[in-house]
Amino acid sequence: MRSVLILGAGRSSSSLIDYVLSQAEANQWLVTVGDVSENAARERVGDSRVGKAISFDIQQETSSDVIAKHDVVISVIPAMLHPLVAKKCLQHDKHLLTASYVSPEMRALDAEAKGKGLLFLNECGLDPGIDHMSAMQVMDRVRNEGGTIHSFESFTGGLIAPETDPENPWRYKFTWNPRNVVMAGQSTAKFLQDGAYKYIPYQQLFKSVTPVVVPCYGEYEGYANRDSLGYRSLYGLDDVKTMLRGTLRNTGFCSAWNVLVQLGCTDDSYKMEKVAGMTHRSFLQSFLTKAASNMEHMVASQTGVVAGGPEIQRLKWSGLFEETPVGLSEGTPAQVLEHILNKKWKLSPSDRDMIVMWHRFRFTLKGKENEIQATLIAKGDDGVRTAMAKTVGLPLGIAAKLLLQGKIQSRGVVIPVGAEFYEPILAELKTLGVELNEELEIRN
Amino acid sequence: MRSVLILGAGRSSSSLIDYVLSQAEANQWLVTVGDVSENAARERVGDSRVGKAISFDIQQETSSDVIAKHDVVISVIPAMLHPLVAKKCLQHDKHLLTASYVSPEMRALDAEAKGKGLLFLNECGLDPGIDHMSAMQVMDRVRNEGGTIHSFESFTGGLIAPETDPENPWRYKFTWNPRNVVMAGQSTAKFLQDGAYKYIPYQQLFKSVTPVVVPCYGEYEGYANRDSLGYRSLYGLDDVKTMLRGTLRNTGFCSAWNVLVQLGCTDDSYKMEKVAGMTHRSFLQSFLTKAASNMEHMVASQTGVVAGGPEIQRLKWSGLFEETPVGLSEGTPAQVLEHILNKKWKLSPSDRDMIVMWHRFRFTLKGKENEIQATLIAKGDDGVRTAMAKTVGLPLGIAAKLLLQGKIQSRGVVIPVGAEFYEPILAELKTLGVELNEELEIRN
Repeated sequence: MRSVLILGAGRSSSSLIDYVLSQAEANQWLVTVGDVSENAARERVGDSRVGKAISFDIQQETSSDVIAKHDVVISVIPAMLHPLVAKKCLQHDKHLLTASYVSPEMRALDAEAKGKGLLFLNECGLDPGIDHMSAMQVMDRVRNEGGTIHSFESFTGGLIAPETDPENPWRYKFTWNPRNVVMAGQSTAKFLQDGAYKYIPYQQLFKSVTPVVVPCYGEYEGYANRDSLGYRSLYGLDDVKTMLRGTLRNTGFCSAWNVLVQLGCTDDSYKMEKVAGMTHRSFLQSFLTKAASNMEHMVASQTGVVAGGPEIQRLKWSGLFEETPVGLSEGTPAQVLEHILNKKWKLSPSDRDMIVMWHRFRFTLKGKENEIQATLIAKGDDGVRTAMAKTVGLPLGIAAKLLLQGKIQSRGVVIPVGAEFYEPILAELKTLGVELNEELEIRN
Repeated sequence: MRSVLILGAGRSSSSLIDYVLSQAEANQWLVTVGDVSENAARERVGDSRVGKAISFDIQQETSSDVIAKHDVVISVIPAMLHPLVAKKCLQHDKHLLTASYVSPEMRALDAEAKGKGLLFLNECGLDPGIDHMSAMQVMDRVRNEGGTIHSFESFTGGLIAPETDPENPWRYKFTWNPRNVVMAGQSTAKFLQDGAYKYIPYQQLFKSVTPVVVPCYGEYEGYANRDSLGYRSLYGLDDVKTMLRGTLRNTGFCSAWNVLVQLGCTDDSYKMEKVAGMTHRSFLQSFLTKAASNMEHMVASQTGVVAGGPEIQRLKWSGLFEETPVGLSEGTPAQVLEHILNKKWKLSPSDRDMIVMWHRFRFTLKGKENEIQATLIAKGDDGVRTAMAKTVGLPLGIAAKLLLQGKIQSRGVVIPVGAEFYEPILAELKTLGVELNEELEIRN
């Protein structure tokens, strides 16, 4: 019997745990799910005969003993704790799989992990994760055919399914950590465009969007993520002219969100005064530089949008002009805004979320300019089995299975950009209903 | 004989040192000027019979012995070192005077300094310094006459004299630390306006300016400083409805500077790529989100100003559209921008700088609404005896004299908001040509 330790039973863990438990009997695994809340772990494990729920806190001494008793650790606890998990895995010679970005502390463990024959696989969720795998599968094929890729753009968004909340003009709800949504984009975005380095600060980010049309699904727009250039070498794109990775939203979201950004409503650097007595309306008013009898007009003129236009309509729908008490006793602007938005953006049990991932590759092949657009759509079943949970958790579960079956040779701190990861993982994801559809366009 | 130790012989120290040396003989002082560069100290002391130049580094052990040998320490070294200076002053029972903001570490020493009968006077330069004193003098008088102040606005700017560089459309040069000028305003400004708390983020700051007209000197505009509310209690303005402190620039400066802010050119959070091969023009181009044949048009349209308008003219004058090599090997956007601007904004020996300070008080007196505008103008003699050096250094020198003459009773960590500071200091500044002029306007 081999044993798998899953750390974290939070909202992103449902599909991962379901999958690992479903594979356990056939593969002769014992599965332990550990969480600071033993109840949360127990709820995920349910009545599985091969699974066990335990109370687990990586910051406690005893966590080492637990890790020592398993063969593979899959962790979906907060990313900042992963260097600590990794050190304990090193200590006891255990493999580690996460969906988190490789931090400098994690990267520093590469040689030691390799030396011990351990795999520390990171960025094996959705974004990062499926984005790496699906892009590399297309690009490796193009290159094998003799093509030279000169442009790569990739956007992913956690959105809501078309049938969910059809009156919601944002076409958005919090399907992931709300705080991250409110804080998104505050670091300058850095990318390559037509051979030139581009730097887009927060105050420009939501104004400079890339339009994306997904056949049968609609019109979207993408804004750039923090650093698109970090993956150039890993993707084999050192000579690429355009490289841009970003976040996808429904059309119209960004210009409305930009109103909140321009006003300063997403600032997290200071606590506001007198939050206890604040209403949605007085919150918004704090950011207006001039007094005005018509507040909607004032918001519009200060941020350069049309009074009564779609941006102001979205703010209105979110109740930002209403004299409703905020309901917090203190907070930064970002915290107050998150609290207000959550009143209408909280996912309800019957809502279905939807992941949209879109890549565009431009390349030269046999003297001709080609373009491939590839799209992945995944819908959630309900408010628990969300598309987010599936697409973050399943790649991790599949990777763990492949590793335990001896099908992964990579060791050290790696991300899933190689064929030994993307071929089997994408193939199995397809059987689970998560599939990339490609559209090829040959130009000139 | 009493002895005065002046720490720092940098660019802001000339008038301070001249003043203290000029007063030394009559007051029977010995003056020591210490700087990490003994040469710089020697240059400031010149051939004075009562002054001595030494090499001094507060971070060295020996600095304690030097402090122990003097009665009063005046420090104009970088503000972040002042808590260390203060601790050594406490150790040896010495008074300390600085022009720096009171940091939390400095504030924490208040009780101990008071207990030892020591004065730790801070914020006794120009801004902070003369601004506190001149405002408090007017406000105390108004209150003594029975008036109730409900609005206080105050702006100070280090500018250039009208006769300096008349072709310069910015009407600005670096008369102070250039880096601080480039980085100004990056923290959200917080103030009170008509009874409401207002929060203005960086992306709005240079758009929401207060117009200021100074009779005989021209039209200016002020933008809000980081935190205008910190002085409410110290100023006795707990019930004030409007309180705003800020920075003054010539009209038109802010909207042109805002173009650079909006583009992201003042960002200091990351290093740019390939700075060695960068030109002014390619620097600017890095921030443009779309390709354009006419770059001036593109800058204008991306930032919402008129192509060929005054903002673009100022950028042109600064050479930002030119294919001139930047001349740095690496840097953040803020560092590159500072380097480019310095090519035309560096103060030359014949230039004269000018300080403009403007306060507006609105108050109710005997049932009537009143307004006082008070303006202080100080011009530099040349590129060394600058207005900045005079207005920062003279208040410190005068305060030291008053202290040594036994005319200051305050002890502990204080700022010069009391009459025992502002009356004699402002009176003596007037004899030195630095004077506040008031204009009273009674309304309704």
